[in-house]
Amino acid sequence: MSQHTVKLTIAYDGTNYNGWQLQKNPNTIQGKIEKAIQKVYGQKCRLYSASRTDAGVHAKGQAAHFVTSIKIPSDKIPKAINSYLPPDIVIKKAVYEKNSFNARFDAVSKMYRYFIFNSHARDPFKERYAWRVTYKLDFQAMKKEARLLKGRHNFKSLQAKDKKERNSVRTIKNVTLAKKGSMIKIDIEADGFLYNMARNIAGTLVDIGRGYLPSGSMAKILKAKKREAAGSTAPGKGLTLIEVKY
Amino acid sequence: MSQHTVKLTIAYDGTNYNGWQLQKNPNTIQGKIEKAIQKVYGQKCRLYSASRTDAGVHAKGQAAHFVTSIKIPSDKIPKAINSYLPPDIVIKKAVYEKNSFNARFDAVSKMYRYFIFNSHARDPFKERYAWRVTYKLDFQAMKKEARLLKGRHNFKSLQAKDKKERNSVRTIKNVTLAKKGSMIKIDIEADGFLYNMARNIAGTLVDIGRGYLPSGSMAKILKAKKREAAGSTAPGKGLTLIEVKY
Repeated sequence: MSQHTVKLTIAYDGTNYNGWQLQKNPNTIQGKIEKAIQKVYGQKCRLYSASRTDAGVHAKGQAAHFVTSIKIPSDKIPKAINSYLPPDIVIKKAVYEKNSFNARFDAVSKMYRYFIFNSHARDPFKERYAWRVTYKLDFQAMKKEARLLKGRHNFKSLQAKDKKERNSVRTIKNVTLAKKGSMIKIDIEADGFLYNMARNIAGTLVDIGRGYLPSGSMAKILKAKKREAAGSTAPGKGLTLIEVKY
Repeated sequence: MSQHTVKLTIAYDGTNYNGWQLQKNPNTIQGKIEKAIQKVYGQKCRLYSASRTDAGVHAKGQAAHFVTSIKIPSDKIPKAINSYLPPDIVIKKAVYEKNSFNARFDAVSKMYRYFIFNSHARDPFKERYAWRVTYKLDFQAMKKEARLLKGRHNFKSLQAKDKKERNSVRTIKNVTLAKKGSMIKIDIEADGFLYNMARNIAGTLVDIGRGYLPSGSMAKILKAKKREAAGSTAPGKGLTLIEVKY
């Protein structure tokens, strides 16, 4: 029986889900899409994603693959699967890949975006997609310290304490901060992200911006190689997986 | 006992509510805010809005007033009420008005915005705030016909059939259409809106844009003075009450 590997590009508003990964709780992005694939293909297919986004985290360009024995023209696949998905999860694109393709291990880099809404006043339209921070933030200090993250480093201090990957060295290809009105946008592109790394970077930059961590902190944080040295973990809802590059 | 009239400016994401107005079903914007006011003031206050937005309709600048015997400094009111509101409803501002003030009858004009997402592909981040239309739309035709709405007209053809207000003459001060990528934005400012008028204008413009109603339709629709002459009613979720002017 021939095997076909399908790569999906997926967008979702993560607000109403318990993250990507299938758990005992079935209310996950993976769970919803696997169920929709089963309805279209009439067979169970396991879905493997480039990133296992946390609860509340969004995606504009998550990537995932599954293997099936049934060949549907690739341009028909998104519409077919979407017809069984809720409006907050959308398959944007499907392409056939070589059978050796793996969405997680073949990814060359990922780009995450974090939104900080620096405001005393709430805004119902930003609430789902940004972390509202009421402290006065020194944007220039955040920008300056963020520059030190660029390059190849051991990011152990910015990795969730309970997740111990053997190798915590990653390369951040680009980190840019932009400010428009009360919104601060942090874009981070890296060859890989440790568990909670993007959220720990955002939380640490906020701690620097509000003066809780002094200027010069980032160099010390990277050097320390322990989670306690860095700042807080920013909430999931401010984070969006923008793109996975192959 | 002295009476104080408080005017609130309110923003909300209407997705999860059965519209503004209190009904048997308590899940309305008015219901949520009246409950929060009662918690802050320890007394029941009826809230009167400038507009009774439908289910799914959003607001960036709804206005409403209530009367109370308790005087709280106006700058403290939003935070106090917001602390009892869900994240998708926000009091943006509070000011004291004369006791003769009425949020509905003193409004000089209202501005509504309608978003049409003209795309075959779904987008989870636009789903809540725009009407996705898959027909190819002739934007120039929509723009041309929309111009005829400007001015003082009998808008009976664009009023919900089951609501019969004695006087269906209103003045549209401005109507502008803009297009950015797949998004079409319709801004309508009028001295008043008949029931469903903004949604019926958006629906009729889409019917014109997709060629279901021919060029020259708008003049005939206004002249006909009956609902059947106009196009469909656009869904509530694409509509936002932007501002109420006094």
